[in-house]
Parts: sequence; C-alpha cells; structure tokens
Amino acid sequence: MAGSTFGEIFRISTFGESHGPAVGVVIDGVTPGVELDLAAIQRELDRRRPGQSSLTTQRKEPDAVEILSGLFEGRTTGAPILMILYNKDARPGAYESIKELFRPGHADYTYLKKYGIRDWRGGGRASARETAARVAAGAVARQLLARRGVSVIAYTVRAGGVACRQIDLDVIERNPMRACDLEAAAEMARRVEEARSRGDSVGGIIECRVRGVPPGLGEPAFDRLDADLAKAMISIPAVKGIEFGAGFAAADMSGSQHNDAMTPEGFVTNHAGGILGGISTGAEIVFRVVIKPTSSIAAEQRTVDVHGRPATIRTKGRHDPCLCPRAVPVVEAMTALVLEDHFKRQAALHA
Amino acid sequence: MAGSTFGEIFRISTFGESHGPAVGVVIDGVTPGVELDLAAIQRELDRRRPGQSSLTTQRKEPDAVEILSGLFEGRTTGAPILMILYNKDARPGAYESIKELFRPGHADYTYLKKYGIRDWRGGGRASARETAARVAAGAVARQLLARRGVSVIAYTVRAGGVACRQIDLDVIERNPMRACDLEAAAEMARRVEEARSRGDSVGGIIECRVRGVPPGLGEPAFDRLDADLAKAMISIPAVKGIEFGAGFAAADMSGSQHNDAMTPEGFVTNHAGGILGGISTGAEIVFRVVIKPTSSIAAEQRTVDVHGRPATIRTKGRHDPCLCPRAVPVVEAMTALVLEDHFKRQAALHA
Amino acid sequence: MAGSTFGEIFRISTFGESHGPAVGVVIDGVTPGVELDLAAIQRELDRRRPGQSSLTTQRKEPDAVEILSGLFEGRTTGAPILMILYNKDARPGAYESIKELFRPGHADYTYLKKYGIRDWRGGGRASARETAARVAAGAVARQLLARRGVSVIAYTVRAGGVACRQIDLDVIERNPMRACDLEAAAEMARRVEEARSRGDSVGGIIECRVRGVPPGLGEPAFDRLDADLAKAMISIPAVKGIEFGAGFAAADMSGSQHNDAMTPEGFVTNHAGGILGGISTGAEIVFRVVIKPTSSIAAEQRTVDVHGRPATIRTKGRHDPCLCPRAVPVVEAMTALVLEDHFKRQAALHA
Amino acid sequence: MAGSTFGEIFRISTFGESHGPAVGVVIDGVTPGVELDLAAIQRELDRRRPGQSSLTTQRKEPDAVEILSGLFEGRTTGAPILMILYNKDARPGAYESIKELFRPGHADYTYLKKYGIRDWRGGGRASARETAARVAAGAVARQLLARRGVSVIAYTVRAGGVACRQIDLDVIERNPMRACDLEAAAEMARRVEEARSRGDSVGGIIECRVRGVPPGLGEPAFDRLDADLAKAMISIPAVKGIEFGAGFAAADMSGSQHNDAMTPEGFVTNHAGGILGGISTGAEIVFRVVIKPTSSIAAEQRTVDVHGRPATIRTKGRHDPCLCPRAVPVVEAMTALVLEDHFKRQAALHA
Repeated sequence: MAGSTFGEIFRISTFGESHGPAVGVVIDGVTPGVELDLAAIQRELDRRRPGQSSLTTQRKEPDAVEILSGLFEGRTTGAPILMILYNKDARPGAYESIKELFRPGHADYTYLKKYGIRDWRGGGRASARETAARVAAGAVARQLLARRGVSVIAYTVRAGGVACRQIDLDVIERNPMRACDLEAAAEMARRVEEARSRGDSVGGIIECRVRGVPPGLGEPAFDRLDADLAKAMISIPAVKGIEFGAGFAAADMSGSQHNDAMTPEGFVTNHAGGILGGISTGAEIVFRVVIKPTSSIAAEQRTVDVHGRPATIRTKGRHDPCLCPRAVPVVEAMTALVLEDHFKRQAALHA
Repeated sequence: MAGSTFGEIFRISTFGESHGPAVGVVIDGVTPGVELDLAAIQRELDRRRPGQSSLTTQRKEPDAVEILSGLFEGRTTGAPILMILYNKDARPGAYESIKELFRPGHADYTYLKKYGIRDWRGGGRASARETAARVAAGAVARQLLARRGVSVIAYTVRAGGVACRQIDLDVIERNPMRACDLEAAAEMARRVEEARSRGDSVGGIIECRVRGVPPGLGEPAFDRLDADLAKAMISIPAVKGIEFGAGFAAADMSGSQHNDAMTPEGFVTNHAGGILGGISTGAEIVFRVVIKPTSSIAAEQRTVDVHGRPATIRTKGRHDPCLCPRAVPVVEAMTALVLEDHFKRQAALHA
Repeated sequence: MAGSTFGEIFRISTFGESHGPAVGVVIDGVTPGVELDLAAIQRELDRRRPGQSSLTTQRKEPDAVEILSGLFEGRTTGAPILMILYNKDARPGAYESIKELFRPGHADYTYLKKYGIRDWRGGGRASARETAARVAAGAVARQLLARRGVSVIAYTVRAGGVACRQIDLDVIERNPMRACDLEAAAEMARRVEEARSRGDSVGGIIECRVRGVPPGLGEPAFDRLDADLAKAMISIPAVKGIEFGAGFAAADMSGSQHNDAMTPEGFVTNHAGGILGGISTGAEIVFRVVIKPTSSIAAEQRTVDVHGRPATIRTKGRHDPCLCPRAVPVVEAMTALVLEDHFKRQAALHA
Repeated sequence: MAGSTFGEIFRISTFGESHGPAVGVVIDGVTPGVELDLAAIQRELDRRRPGQSSLTTQRKEPDAVEILSGLFEGRTTGAPILMILYNKDARPGAYESIKELFRPGHADYTYLKKYGIRDWRGGGRASARETAARVAAGAVARQLLARRGVSVIAYTVRAGGVACRQIDLDVIERNPMRACDLEAAAEMARRVEEARSRGDSVGGIIECRVRGVPPGLGEPAFDRLDADLAKAMISIPAVKGIEFGAGFAAADMSGSQHNDAMTPEGFVTNHAGGILGGISTGAEIVFRVVIKPTSSIAAEQRTVDVHGRPATIRTKGRHDPCLCPRAVPVVEAMTALVLEDHFKRQAALHA
C-alpha cells in the first residue's frame, strides 16, 4: 500500500537507500522446488552495476547479492526469499554540501513535500540504486520464465538523437550503449561522451521484446497485461512514457491499417504489440519506453534551497551521462516480474 | 486480483457485459457525509453516452444511473456505493452471425484463449461499454476532488492526422471531437466522416491536465503517481501508449534542457509533467495517451474462425469511427480515481 | 481496503443496506466455464431467509437472487458475477422512533462514531441482512468446491444452555434449530420460545466440519487457513469467538495428549482440527464459533441518545430470538469462500 | 498473497527460517518523521528471546536487531524499514537425525504436502522463530500507538490447569510465566517444571487488554477490528482459538445479560470486549487466546516417516515446556500491528 510492493501473487517488496547500509528485496510467492542459478542472478546484477564502462557512473559497487532466506540446498522452498546488497561505496558526505538544495529533475523537493523529512544522501530511497533490488528479483523471475519458454530482451533503440537502423539482438551486450545496431551504438557513444564533456546528459528510448508468451495472459478490466507492464515501466526512475506495438504512430493510422489481420498461420502484422483487450495474443510482445536525460548534470542550474531562496547548483558526484545502458536490465527485470505474476494469476483462474 | 478492481483505498469494482442485463460498479472507501450531486454524475455519463453526434455510435443507451446503496438522505455513508446502468438497447442477436469469427483488433481471440469460453455478444466483458461504470465512479471521485480544489480536464489534441494548434479549454464541449481547437476540430470531423464513409476509422491523441494537486502525492517505489496513472490509462480500451510532460520528445533532449529549473516563484518549465520521482511537484500534471483507430470497421478484413479456418469479416453494427470524443470523459474519470485514491493514501501515511 | 471485500483470488465485495433498495455481491475470480446450478444457490438463500419458522424473524423477504453479469448460457465466463437481492419488505419507518437512540449490543453507536453519519434504518450497512450476499456468493463457492470433492456442513451444537449429546448430520435440516441432535433441538426450541416470550434472546455455539480438503492448503505465515477462517467467522455479525479442534480445552491438556499421533493409516486423533502450522492436514477441518444472544430484544434496556442523554429502549420489530439457525448457512458460506480462495492460491503457488 | 505479508497500510512482510542465516521483517507505511526508541524495540525482543528462564528454551539467541533502511538520523523517513536478526545459535545438524520424520503437532507433514520440499532444519519457515520478526515490527507499532495514547498489555491467565484469581498488571514482568497473579504463577511454574521433567508440556490461555482506543476503529463488513485481531492471533503458532469479551460464555447468556447497557458515563459492562459491529466502542478491548501445549516433547510419540512407514520420535532439542511466557509479547505485537493499521485506515476514510 505504501508503494514498495509490486505484484499480486509473485510479489516483491524492496527496501534500502542509496547511501544507507544496503538495498534489497523480499520475494514472496515463488514456485517451490526450483533450483536457482545464483551465478545467473549475479550476472544480471553485473549488467546493471555501476562502473561498467566510461559511459556509466564510476561508483564502485560490487553488488554481490546475498540470499538470506527461502532457499534450501539450492532450491526454492516457497518461503520468502530475502536478497540483500550491501552498499560498499556509499559516500553520503559527498552530498553534505547540497543537503539544503533541491536538485532539478530529482525527487528532492517532492520527497520533502511528501514526507516532511528527507534522507538527502544521494536521493535516499528515491535513488535509482533501488533498481538493483528489482534486477535481483527480476533475475529470479527470468529463471522461472525460462522454464516456461519465455525470454525477455531489451535494448537501446535511440539515444542522444541517434536511432538504430536495424535490430540485431546479438550485438546488444557487445556495445556499451546496449544498442541493437553497432554502428548507431558508436555514434550514440560519441554523443554521450560529448554531452558528458560539457557537463550535460542525453535521453533515449529502450525497446523490449518478449517471446514465448502464450495467448491468454492478462486480466480484464484493470489488470491488463499492458496496463501492468505500463505501471511497471513508469515506476522505473527516468521513464516518462511507454507505447505498445505501433504506439503513438497509431494516432495517424486508420483501422484498416492498424488492425492485425488473422490467418491460420497467425497474425499478419503486430501493430497491437502482442496484446489485445489487455490479454496476450501469442505474438511477440513489443513496447518502447522513453528515458529522460539524466537529471544529475555538472552544468550550473537554477534552483532553490529548502528555505525557498534562489540558488544555483552543479550536481557533482558519479553519474551516468545516459541512463539507457543500465536501464536495459531494469526494463527486462520489471517485465519478467509482471509476466511471472500473470502466469500464476492465469493458473489460479483456471484452478 | 482477477482484474476488475482498481484502487487501494478509494477502490472500485466494475461488472457487466455489453449486451447482458447491466453494467455497473461498486465503490468502496468513499469519504462519509458528503452530499453527492447526482445530476453531475449523470452529466458525466451523458458525455460518454453513445449517440451524442453523428461521429459516435448510434446505439441508444440512456445510461441513467441508479444508486442502490451507500447513500442516505443524499449523503455518502461510507458504505459501498453500488451504481448500476441497465442496458436498454442491447442487441445480442446482431452478433449471432459472427459468433464464430474473431474480429481483428478486438479481444475475441484473446478472451477465448484466456477463458476457454466467450460471451460473443458484442465483446461481452471486453466491450468498452464497461467504461460507463468507470465514468460513473469517476464522477463521484471528481466531486470529492473538487472539494480539494482539484480539477481534471482532457481533450482531443490530434485525430485523423490533424493536430490542434492551440489549447482553448473553453471550446472542448462545443465541438463533437472534444478537441481544444475549433478549427482543427472541424478538419478532424471531416476526416472522421471520410473514414466512416469508406468503412474505416481513425486514431488520435488525448491530452489530460490536472490542476490543484499539491506537491507530495504518489508513493515510491512502485505506486508512483505517474505509474498508477499509466496503469489507469493503459487499462482503457484502445489506449496504446502514454507519455508525461515532454514525453517521448525527452529522448532527444539534454539534461540541461529537460530539467525544470526552480525559482522562488516555482518551476520555470514543466517538462516533467508535474511529477518527479513519482510524486507530484505541485505543477500542473500533464500527460497524453494515444487512442488506436476503432477496430470495428465495415471494410472487409481477413480473419479466422474459432476452428482456425480462414474467413473474411465486416464488422457491422453501431460503432464510433473515432473513439476520442467518448474516450475523453473516460480518461478524466480514471485520472480522478487515481488522484482521489492517492489523496487518501497520503493522509494514511501521515496519520 | 475499506472492508467490504474478502478473499485474494476468489474475491467478493458486498454492498447494500438492510432497509435500502437492495443487498448484493460481486464475485471476481470465478473459474470460467462452470455450469452454475441457480436453484441450488436459491436453496442456500432460502436456508438463511427470514420467516422460516416461528424461531426466526417474521420479516418477509423472498430473497430471490438475480444474476446480472458473469454468466453466459448458464456458464461462468470468468467475468465478475453480480448477484443482487432486492429488499421487498423493508420498513425503514419502523425505525423512525428510535433513530436518535443507540440500541445496546448493536453497532449504532460505533457506526456513528466511525462515520459521523448513520443510516439508522434497521442498522443500515451493519445489519446482518448483509450476510444474505455472503450466502449467495458462498453458494457459488460451494458448487466449485463440490467439484473438488469438498463438502462444508455446520450445525448448532449448543443454544439456550442446551448442548447436543450426539452429532447426527442427517437431522440438521429437519429441526428449526439446525441442531445435530433432535432431542436437544426440541429442548433448545423450548428455551428459545421461552426467552422470546419474556422479550429476551439466547446465544449458542455452531460447529463446522469440512471434509475432502487435501493436505497442503493454507499460506504461512499470516494467511494460514485457520487464520483466514477465523477472520471469516469473526466477521459474521454476533460471532464473538472461534476455536479449532480441541480449542480452548487445549489450555488444560499436555503435549502428549494434544499432539495427534500419525500412523500409516492417518492421524489417530484430530485435536488440531485438521490444521497444523496453518496448513490443512487432510483430516476433517473442525471448528466452533460462539454466537452471542440477539441484541434486539423487547425487554427494556438502558441506553443513551445521540445527544448523550439517558434513555430507555425496547427494540421492537421482527427479530430472531436465537441467531443460530440462520447463522448456520452463513458459517458454511464464509467457510466455502475461504476454501475456494485457498485452492486457487495453492494452484498459483505451484504454477 | 503468498501469506508472509500482514496489514493494509501499515504493512509488514516477514522472512527467514529458524536455522537459516537470519529472520527479519520489512515494514512499509510507517509515519515519517518519528524518532524511534531503538532500545525499546530491543527490550520487546528481549521479552520474546529464548533462554530467559528455566521455563523457556535454552537456545542462545541475542536477537540483537539491526535496522538497515528507513531511518535517517534516528527518525523514520516513510521508506520501508528493514529489521534483521541474524541467527547466532542455529544448529541445523541437531535436526539431521529426524529429517525424514514428521514431528506430531508440527507443520512438518503439512509443509511437505504443501510445497513438495521441506527445510527440515527446526521447522524452517514454520518455526515460531519467525515471530521474532513480528515482535520487532510490533515494537515499532507500539511506539506509534503510544503517541496516540494507546497501550497494549497481555499476560498469562491460565497454564497447566492453573487459573489466575486476580488481574494484577504490575506483576506480569515479575514472574517467569508472565501471569497476572503471583500466587497462581508460582503454581503454574511448578506444573510446567513437572511436565518438563516427564518429557511433556502444558497449554494455557493469554488475555490481552488494549486501552486508549477511541470509538470508531475497524472496517465493516469483513475487515472488522475483531476479525482482523482474530486473524492476527490465529496466525501466531500454537494459538488455536480466540474469544472477545464474554466470549464462549455468551453461548449461555441471554440478550438482556449480554447487552452492555449505555449511560451518559459510558458502558455499564463490557461483555462485547470493546467492539460492536466490528468497530471499537471506546471501552477497553479484551480478548483471550488459547495456546496449545508445546508440540516438541521428549516423550516418545508415534509418527510416520516421509515414506509413510511407522516410526517413533522423541523431539529433543531446546524447547519451551509452556509457550505462554514467550507468546505474550507476540500477542501484544500482533495486536499493535492491527491497531496501528486501523488507525491509518480510519484516517484514510475521512481524508
């Protein structure tokens, strides 16, 4: 209810602050008896980890996950799984000088207004560091989905004004932008470096594709598969929009164009993005999210302090000049969490 | 859990099928002691009602709401409010001829795959007729929000390829497209009529603005105000995307452009759309949703029947050639439901 | 959240007031494709209906249930089922004279304190008339449970100070007390009539037995099967306690007495009442609830009015001098709702 | 949904196994800005801690709580609070010899049937060690309730067949039984020692009293204050029944006896136990729970092994011969959690 829990049956609750002792997650509702591949969980965390390349923040966090419950002899027991990541490179002192200033684009002002108190150490609870816990939980969901034949893959399709011209899934992990087009990726990286060098940042778009989902997942009227995915995505820091299939382009299409004709061999097109009436069609699920440019920039910005007085601020510290590369695994994780939950909901319906 | 309930504290549960006896909603968690303006509720329903103009379906539904519980001497008692709209112009027989065909763009196929059984009478539960119940509940939420000084207004900004060039809130209810620009509205209407005449339909974009929300609404990490709005919007039939503030345009912006500078007088810009870190900033909340072109079109389309055999279909019946005008009150209703719920959540946090 | 919803997956929401237009329930999460026996639903309602015998209230309510959604050609579709019972013999005027008085033992005072407004017409929302909606929903759950081989039976074991000396399930529906011992039932009936004649009422105890539940139902740590049954039971008006298996007698037992020894043929005893660690053992589930004596009595009682002034009151109207006979089907209904929900939860866990 | 979460707004999720690395809890929905008294939290844990006296298990657990999130400079921030207790004296090896046997009275059999896999190390998740996490969370709730003027106190009223003859709240913490009557406590202790010496255990009854709750807390129809307390209590391991106010004695009372007359000075009696219609009356809330005799006993018992073969078992290890003393703080904790949640729910209703 207070917002740190996600999912109905396969359900996670995250906790922790960016510069507190730890971040982590409790997962409840995990299928019992499943052997978890802990190395695979760690690999997902490594993909989100800071300091992977010059394009990401230089904060040094090993993000080594510890699992304190819910496993017995390597298998899930059905009991809640606690996963914890101790913060090793927290530097709260770095924020001391701006503890009375609101960083533009950040939740500093809104958190203070909401709570009347604010953990100013690097955003506290509002920091995207919380997404490490999501990735850990999502890595568990991915393993359960893999057993169902479902795969989730996301990648950068646009960043710094550069668009991918092809979708080559094989190159995603081979370029620091996690883009699906190596040539575009190189150009994106140049733009990101450029932005960083002038104390600025860039935005982008991430696309996500899910394969192997059978028709029939999703609940009407409100807990539609796309509605739950939308909530999951918009809940990721810096995501400001989402579109499914043809998305916003549908505004200018006619029904005869947008409708996906059906044949005995399946849908002829996939303008729906794999979801009709909120329920999966069996076609690939496709959606895109927009990632705003990183709010933490070194360039000087106008702001106010907690007393309402005008001020200027330069957000120093260790920040990503483009959030896309590290947001890719978060998008995948949240997608996996939604899907695993809906598989269980569908099973419950028919039980 | 099965998807027909929305909200945490101010919570609605809808029921009913398009060509069954009735649609309706139970609202729980309503502030007690509030005098409800029943005429105002009916007015909202009238805005969503079919048959308002030549641009909407000609189904004749008075949509006269009956309230069967939760009111005493005109005031809310805090008990659940049941609102019911009996279907007066249901014509299930009209669907008899296509009961074995899947209408492209509709949930016919996905519902059958999900449930193994399908109420083929005009989409049954999947029909947008369910949104009448949302509008009824939303009308209650709006009255509660009005007491808090909050107003919600939505309007068509694009349809049939025509974009509004100005935002004039005064003209919205004075044109059948519910557009914010009279000149554009006239052009949109021409395109809609044109599409209809060739058995086709058009899509569009609706924008929504919320005024009077104080800073501090929304719950991290998952139940962010924007995340909950996104879920609410994508749960509306035909909505395929949502963006907040600068939205997808943020992909090509730099941080120094996108960040909204703060001054003692407030935010200088509103690229964030009134929400930072998932919590309201106090600025106007602004978002846009894309409405796909109506799936029900008279033009011939390829499809399959329930036995998997190829077929063609022309969706006759009474349909809107553009969904925007009638979707506007639904967007407003869902927005109001999310906000009223979050006001109560914020109060609970500090209680 | 506001309390009128029960269940996680198989979930009901009730609405309606005792002397308003109707009471009813929405059920969500019903297995699709199941043919419902509507006559059997009505039979359950008839068992709870007022006016069955001289031992129950003489209010005349046919309690004919109408189903307005979620069924198609006699089968469940998986969409929410709305069941409604219009109040036919509401007499709000009968309460006019006591609308400023708090009836002892009733929720008059607490509702006014809670809500600041009170529907004084026969208790309004607080009336046990709301339980008709539970029985209707429970009757659906019972049909689903029957397909799983599960049966739920409750009966009066004590009333007016008279205890049953045997458990004969065959006689329950053959005596107006719904007791499991005809001889005791006759004596109970005499005590009830006696109490009524002097303007008073009596309490009692209902026992419930569930057969056919496999081992493994229930969720640790909080949503234990017994914990959920306890909540369900205590949520029934007039129920003031519950005990499982040996119950309160366990206070004076030793571990060697209370522990149910296991053999290859099963448990030797059933002091646990069929639940260990919150999870069903496969043995019969047995529990008892205490029903307080009816609060509405004709004898004069001391009370206060809404202004805090002392007063006396005689609760006239049509009331049951002993609630047990009509509470029996309510106990069964709530039990069935809990079990059907937990079957689905167990399926979801392993999905 | 999977059962390890409790509460609607003030909500806890527990995790951990008896002989795994740790047990703990995440609390979400905590009022921000409150200075927490960490020593007071530890004191509550010390009351539940093993090894307090010869009457309790000799397992040595310091139960020193660590708080890893949700606090900033000693105050709550409104973010989730993670409290963790590392298991220091886990001895999983002690259970190796009985890992294929089902201990009578324990959840060994039911967990295996439920999950298909079992953490046999001292009951794993089913162990009452999980209640340490509840006490930690309850201690936070108590501090919030104290600010509201609410106090919760529980005590043993019966054990080993000995009943307290007076209620002296001052002596509770001065005797190892946590009884409300020193003389009875001494006799209880003798009976407990006696039972232990013959390899057996005893049951008992705990009473709980809550003072300072204003009228109006609780939600009809299902989330009644007593219904939620009942669920909370029955969710505590070994609790097999609960009764409010007059409780089961109401079965033999008449309405004129049981109804609590009202006067301008308040209720004359409190047979209702402070709750009417599921909502607090403002009188003291009073209920009793029965605690079954400890299932772990040294005396030989008949059982079966995981292959269904007959066997005998003596549960060695370190166990409490009577659970009452250590269950008292658990009863208080769960009561506090329910109340704090309902205070927030009431605030949300009127917001």
